[in-house]
Amino acid sequence: MAGDDRVYLFDTTLRDGQQTRGVDFTVADKIAIARALDALGVAYVEGGWPGANPTDDRFFAEPPKLEQARLVAFGMTRRPGRSAENDPGLAAILDARVPAVCLVGKTWDFHVDVALEIERDENVAMIRDSMKRSIAVGREAMFDCEHFFDGYKANPDYAVSCAKAAYESGARWIVLCDTNGGTLPHEIEEIVGEVAKAVPGSHLGIHCHNDTGNAVANSLAAIRAGARQVQGTINGLGERCGNADLMAIIPSLVLKMGIDCGVTPERLTHLTAVSRMLDERLNRPSDPHRAYVGAAAFAHKGGLHVSAVQKDPTTYEHVDPASVGNQRHILVSDQAGRSNILARFAEIGVEIDPKHPKVQRLVEEVKEKEFQGYAFDSAEASFELLARRLIHGVPEYFSIERWRVMDERRFNARGVLVVESEATATLTVDDRACHEVAVGNGPVNALDTAIRKALVPHYPSIEGMRLVDYKVRILPPSRDGDGTDAVTRVMIESADSDGNTWRTVGISPNIIDASIEALADALIWRLLKDGVPAPGTGGPGA
Amino acid sequence: MAGDDRVYLFDTTLRDGQQTRGVDFTVADKIAIARALDALGVAYVEGGWPGANPTDDRFFAEPPKLEQARLVAFGMTRRPGRSAENDPGLAAILDARVPAVCLVGKTWDFHVDVALEIERDENVAMIRDSMKRSIAVGREAMFDCEHFFDGYKANPDYAVSCAKAAYESGARWIVLCDTNGGTLPHEIEEIVGEVAKAVPGSHLGIHCHNDTGNAVANSLAAIRAGARQVQGTINGLGERCGNADLMAIIPSLVLKMGIDCGVTPERLTHLTAVSRMLDERLNRPSDPHRAYVGAAAFAHKGGLHVSAVQKDPTTYEHVDPASVGNQRHILVSDQAGRSNILARFAEIGVEIDPKHPKVQRLVEEVKEKEFQGYAFDSAEASFELLARRLIHGVPEYFSIERWRVMDERRFNARGVLVVESEATATLTVDDRACHEVAVGNGPVNALDTAIRKALVPHYPSIEGMRLVDYKVRILPPSRDGDGTDAVTRVMIESADSDGNTWRTVGISPNIIDASIEALADALIWRLLKDGVPAPGTGGPGA
Repeated sequence: MAGDDRVYLFDTTLRDGQQTRGVDFTVADKIAIARALDALGVAYVEGGWPGANPTDDRFFAEPPKLEQARLVAFGMTRRPGRSAENDPGLAAILDARVPAVCLVGKTWDFHVDVALEIERDENVAMIRDSMKRSIAVGREAMFDCEHFFDGYKANPDYAVSCAKAAYESGARWIVLCDTNGGTLPHEIEEIVGEVAKAVPGSHLGIHCHNDTGNAVANSLAAIRAGARQVQGTINGLGERCGNADLMAIIPSLVLKMGIDCGVTPERLTHLTAVSRMLDERLNRPSDPHRAYVGAAAFAHKGGLHVSAVQKDPTTYEHVDPASVGNQRHILVSDQAGRSNILARFAEIGVEIDPKHPKVQRLVEEVKEKEFQGYAFDSAEASFELLARRLIHGVPEYFSIERWRVMDERRFNARGVLVVESEATATLTVDDRACHEVAVGNGPVNALDTAIRKALVPHYPSIEGMRLVDYKVRILPPSRDGDGTDAVTRVMIESADSDGNTWRTVGISPNIIDASIEALADALIWRLLKDGVPAPGTGGPGA
Repeated sequence: MAGDDRVYLFDTTLRDGQQTRGVDFTVADKIAIARALDALGVAYVEGGWPGANPTDDRFFAEPPKLEQARLVAFGMTRRPGRSAENDPGLAAILDARVPAVCLVGKTWDFHVDVALEIERDENVAMIRDSMKRSIAVGREAMFDCEHFFDGYKANPDYAVSCAKAAYESGARWIVLCDTNGGTLPHEIEEIVGEVAKAVPGSHLGIHCHNDTGNAVANSLAAIRAGARQVQGTINGLGERCGNADLMAIIPSLVLKMGIDCGVTPERLTHLTAVSRMLDERLNRPSDPHRAYVGAAAFAHKGGLHVSAVQKDPTTYEHVDPASVGNQRHILVSDQAGRSNILARFAEIGVEIDPKHPKVQRLVEEVKEKEFQGYAFDSAEASFELLARRLIHGVPEYFSIERWRVMDERRFNARGVLVVESEATATLTVDDRACHEVAVGNGPVNALDTAIRKALVPHYPSIEGMRLVDYKVRILPPSRDGDGTDAVTRVMIESADSDGNTWRTVGISPNIIDASIEALADALIWRLLKDGVPAPGTGGPGA
């Protein structure tokens, strides 16, 4: 193995990542995630702990066939006072139909004395016997050194003797774990360098947690000190502050450190998709600020900045976003210059000549509206509508002429205190007046319902639309220069039944009025995207 | 300065953090954040860029008085071809009534050639002149070396000559910026070490971005290499992948590296509160997995783990959670809940005897209400009222019996489209029914006005009260187990004419109802604090 400079990626999303509060993978999730990691080029995929729960048992009973990655079953070394051949816990792990096992054991003398309450030599024997048994039944054996760095600081000789026992028993990998996550990068680099004198770096792995915000740096430091296996999870999933984030480690190894980790440049372009897939499986929004793969990781704001990026992206981008399957985003903002607006146009697919006479008016309108309090950075659908209205026109799908909403807290006929909202709305759709009434659990809900009652007969496609987030802020009175009235900003996120989401914004001194503006934009944007023709015409148009 | 081992913390939440998509601080936000950073012990608070936008202009026109931190105005060095005395951009920065300025300039030859398109010597002169001018008008001067690390890799001599020019012109700090965020920790440590041969480390600062997930480690690496100023933001707020997270850097400096950074152990216990406050100001949920300050950072799950933690916390905790103002969370532990809740009351100055017979009911009520969606950590006035009602009783100052509000968009008699809100409220005050009507620029404003019309004749002290912030969030339907109706949470911040502020919360499926609950709490809390007696009595009391 010496001289092999390859770093072996070991993913533990399905085992250590699963420890996270609120994470509960199904067998189907586990299979899909294992396949995605395999396609990415990860060397080892730890699937779970056989015998720990029914999901893991089912996963290991019929493990997915992978292209190149090796599946790993996790577990503990044999119990004290038992032989490795006669330990049911170990047997369950070795029964799993996978090529490799990773067994955790103690290396911190304090834990051996206080938590296990056994002789230190017996702990070493547990490690040795468990490795030998795993190899005897044909498994690639790995030893996870729990609390290695705390143990090393307390008693380096004992910690190293545990690691060495596993190595001398034939373990392919001895994984140094920063279980409590409190070790800093310079300590990791120094300690791994010391351990590598006793166990060859080509057999050392690193497993870090993010309790000081340094899990990625700690992993890279260990690799620089000679470790050749690195453990982590997709998106740094894991209990407390998470595990080391493989989505950040992989591109730094490939693009910056020139280290072969099994992920080819072509495979690396799937990185962003793997990250997003995990969030999809967990049914939660992706963190836009994630290193390399976040939606905002290559977002540019200021005007000067943007024109420089367009001249030469290397001026403001540390890597090419396409190399990790991500995209450049040009944000619209307060500081928006002409180049910002034009770049944003290109991104939303609106072809426009930069010399178009209306571009200047649009730039001014964006600035004016953002001064009033519109936040287009977080409401891309409203921005797109603003641009399309000014440049190409947007069909007049409907017009909300009047509305009224009454909210009341009163005692009903049975003497019960009730809160009720009732709304009426008058719309013009296709030259016809529609007048509808609805109740709701709040004024916005009641009005939304009344408006849809009027629209659905004309535009059935909006039936599946729903409001998924609704946020309100009061902006300070100074903004509109008046000094007396505060302005309310409503941000709405809508979703359709296919899982698409889009965001709109409304501004008014009146919260209901601002909500209606954002709601109307959400409806119009959906109709536009569906290619719904303007009323009374054969096709879409102004 | 040599021999001074103190590290100076420089916060740029209000300037670089403000660049983030969706972040839009008000002047009130900026003042509150600056005060919190000051109380934490941060040495420098960068408030914004005078001349860049109306909010920053207003902030610098009346900057808050801070206890120990120095406010910093950000800007650019003088333009090419102008004298520093005759540059309107620089003048706007130097006009700001703050003791320090931080001016950014180029240090990467490629940017000088391609972006600025000026002679390299002129760029050095711009740095030199701007530093000298800042010092001449009495400012502490700092130079932000934009793209320093990319510049150093391309042309170390030129990059260092720019840094040296600033130093020789009298700049207190030369800040090495990893503007694109692509540099790895070992490169930072090496390059800072080299630069320290030309500019003393006691004058070097570090400014990192998190594009590779290493911003915290990069900052620590620079400090190890000799830099003595470290720039970052609360929670790593910042564009793309964020800036270096001061909430992670500070505790590692204090608790692990033994470095004096102005944050005493006592001040460090406010760290978690500062982190949470920023998220509240931004109206977004806190990341539970954040290093040190996240709600899950010290969460313990399984039984073995938990009993070991209870035996000796150092077995599974890298630092004491209380040292950073955080808490250990052990699931299914009534005792932990009880002491936790009592500690939270003690924190807001409400003394409760732990042996009081009603304490158990209070603990259950807090848990139940937080499960429903009340967020008492950010609504300490509502939290205090909850406790006082249960333990000591709170005077029945008034009771809001019924209300009704009508919002309407319609054409008025002159054919103008108007939006109006009109509210009626029926209150009982001192056994008398008060029935009032008011209009407002929104339903909550109208109801608030009607309620005050009823109350002010009885309680004149509330006349000066005003609503300074109003935030709404929809909580996911799963919370109330019903699966159909979402719950609305309203958070209100109120202020009196003396500048005191307090926060209250209301929850209801109906946004108006939730608002009234929060408003009523705000009024009652003020009356209680003013020592207003209960109606019909001679003094306060239940």
